[in-house]
Amino acid sequence: MALIDTASTMIFTDYSSSSSSSTARLLLFNTAKLRNFPKTISTFRRSNSLQFGISSRTSPRTIITHCSSSSTSAMQVNNETFAKVIDGKRVAQDIREEIGVEISRMKEEIGIVPGLAVILVGDRKDSATYVRNKKKACDTVGINSYEARLAEDSTEEEVLNHISKFNDDPSVHGILVQLPLPSHMNEQNILNAVCIEKDVDGFHPLNIGRLAMRGREPLFVPCTPKGCIELLHRYDIPIKGKRAVVIGRSNIVGMPAALLLQREDATVSIVHSRTKNPEEITRQADIIISAVGQPNMVRGSWVKPGAVLIDVGINPVEDPASPRGYRLVGDICYDEARKVASAITPVPGGVGPMTIAMLLSNTLLSAKRIHNFR
Amino acid sequence: MALIDTASTMIFTDYSSSSSSSTARLLLFNTAKLRNFPKTISTFRRSNSLQFGISSRTSPRTIITHCSSSSTSAMQVNNETFAKVIDGKRVAQDIREEIGVEISRMKEEIGIVPGLAVILVGDRKDSATYVRNKKKACDTVGINSYEARLAEDSTEEEVLNHISKFNDDPSVHGILVQLPLPSHMNEQNILNAVCIEKDVDGFHPLNIGRLAMRGREPLFVPCTPKGCIELLHRYDIPIKGKRAVVIGRSNIVGMPAALLLQREDATVSIVHSRTKNPEEITRQADIIISAVGQPNMVRGSWVKPGAVLIDVGINPVEDPASPRGYRLVGDICYDEARKVASAITPVPGGVGPMTIAMLLSNTLLSAKRIHNFR
Repeated sequence: MALIDTASTMIFTDYSSSSSSSTARLLLFNTAKLRNFPKTISTFRRSNSLQFGISSRTSPRTIITHCSSSSTSAMQVNNETFAKVIDGKRVAQDIREEIGVEISRMKEEIGIVPGLAVILVGDRKDSATYVRNKKKACDTVGINSYEARLAEDSTEEEVLNHISKFNDDPSVHGILVQLPLPSHMNEQNILNAVCIEKDVDGFHPLNIGRLAMRGREPLFVPCTPKGCIELLHRYDIPIKGKRAVVIGRSNIVGMPAALLLQREDATVSIVHSRTKNPEEITRQADIIISAVGQPNMVRGSWVKPGAVLIDVGINPVEDPASPRGYRLVGDICYDEARKVASAITPVPGGVGPMTIAMLLSNTLLSAKRIHNFR
Repeated sequence: MALIDTASTMIFTDYSSSSSSSTARLLLFNTAKLRNFPKTISTFRRSNSLQFGISSRTSPRTIITHCSSSSTSAMQVNNETFAKVIDGKRVAQDIREEIGVEISRMKEEIGIVPGLAVILVGDRKDSATYVRNKKKACDTVGINSYEARLAEDSTEEEVLNHISKFNDDPSVHGILVQLPLPSHMNEQNILNAVCIEKDVDGFHPLNIGRLAMRGREPLFVPCTPKGCIELLHRYDIPIKGKRAVVIGRSNIVGMPAALLLQREDATVSIVHSRTKNPEEITRQADIIISAVGQPNMVRGSWVKPGAVLIDVGINPVEDPASPRGYRLVGDICYDEARKVASAITPVPGGVGPMTIAMLLSNTLLSAKRIHNFR
């Protein structure tokens, strides 16, 4: 974990591995990846279908460390004007300040302080760091944080007991179980034990069902996709009636992002590892949200001039010039895409910082709802 | 209801109004529509966005009684060869027979007969007809059917008591509440009271959430979209890697159909009333499922040569030549589209008969699951 230094990246990375589904796996930057980090850098292979998903787990990863702009030469590119940079770090900071104000008002008016409980099982250093960062973020806005640390060899029952205690604790308004859990535990059983009113991750199937259905309201919107949409809103980017393409269909980002865009009346297409000629579809999009974990996969030629690009990927690529020997890039080839798009999120500093801001937002929302405070 | 004579149409129509959401409304053929049936036939208005959805409720409906093939002239059309007709009536019959065999085997081996309970509140003639038809369908395959009839002025509590009784009754494996309910009742409260293990409609948000999530399995797949996919399977139409467009995003057909196609690895786009230039998107589709309730909306020019077309719409159009003064057409302009597509469902006789077959299938599935019978 010493390899990663920005809090936002750690927090985001953390979230990307917090899937409540054991099969959904968003291929974002995490320590497991770093361990398998390839020593050789190969060139970007163009293929007829996306190679993310299963294939990237079974074959050595293909890394593109930088993307030339030559592939965009045939496009309507104006090298003089670049896309507006969507500054997630600044927006996240604004949101944290707004949350802080609301929490003060809540405390003053009804004497309630929102509380977030995190359950950490085992001694993984990365997990400990993530939990520490969540605690820090809570501190800055005035949310009480609670923690239960259990030994690696705890039983599932012990974890369930802690969840049950937090479920019943009126000072706790949000509960997170830090993933991954030790392999002897059933993740789905444990996550399902968190009562839906405190499931600030928003990954409960009942919540996802409400998100999918017209006329129903989810209790919580999952943090990363909520952050993506919030960025669009804060930059006054219209969604209604627009063509939107989501790349990736994970339970934690791609799928809920698509449902959210549809709720806002976009016409949504989901591109995934089985999609043939994905670039044909992305080129039609007014808005692209990419969440696959393939460095620089979305080239400038994949982007319609004037499109808005939200890049959820955080991928390490080797970089001898960096003190750490690597740097982080998104799924979208930034240097190429910013010459074509009208707005783009950078990596890092785009979606990453929004995830934790949305976790704080969900915790506040939960406390307000439980105490019927407006 | 005397206006409609085929059982399949009635059953299908019935389902289209059985949304568990009060706001979602699939604009399919129902008696309310017939009452508002316009006396004048206007020509098909082309517009930049689909006019289904809200607009069709607030403005007089635009009816196209027949669609000329002139609009397909620019397309690669072979007038000699027509699309294969996907015979839903025959497939539904096959499925009923298969269900009958399974039910006999179950009865023989473990002495259990699947049971479907229907709750009917009030004196609507159409509802009574639908319930009668469900009962008939159950009889033909050997499913026991149970019925609770309550007076129009019953209380919500009385309905809830009946649901509770059926929830606890081990001889009942599926429960349907006939919609619409009298206006003094809260539909969502009542539908949510059906225990999820017996919710053979599959509209519970928890079920929809599981349908949306990778690695999760829904208990029941909603009947009409399940019927659409079953038709594709029975005709050996590949879905994986194909471009699929779903027209309409209702909770009961469009949205779950899109989720099902995605589970089968199609690349899915959802077109709806806010979509601009829908025909540009549908023209890219290998598979189109249309569920909007706009007669003949999907013209030949909207269809890619060789595409497969599944038409969920059942729409009445005036027809002086018919003894009843009207006939039923789908959302897809059949005469035009069959010259372009490789396969197409007719209306009636396509998706319609599949809905009731899938209801029987879900009831059998429920009984098998409850009694752990394979």
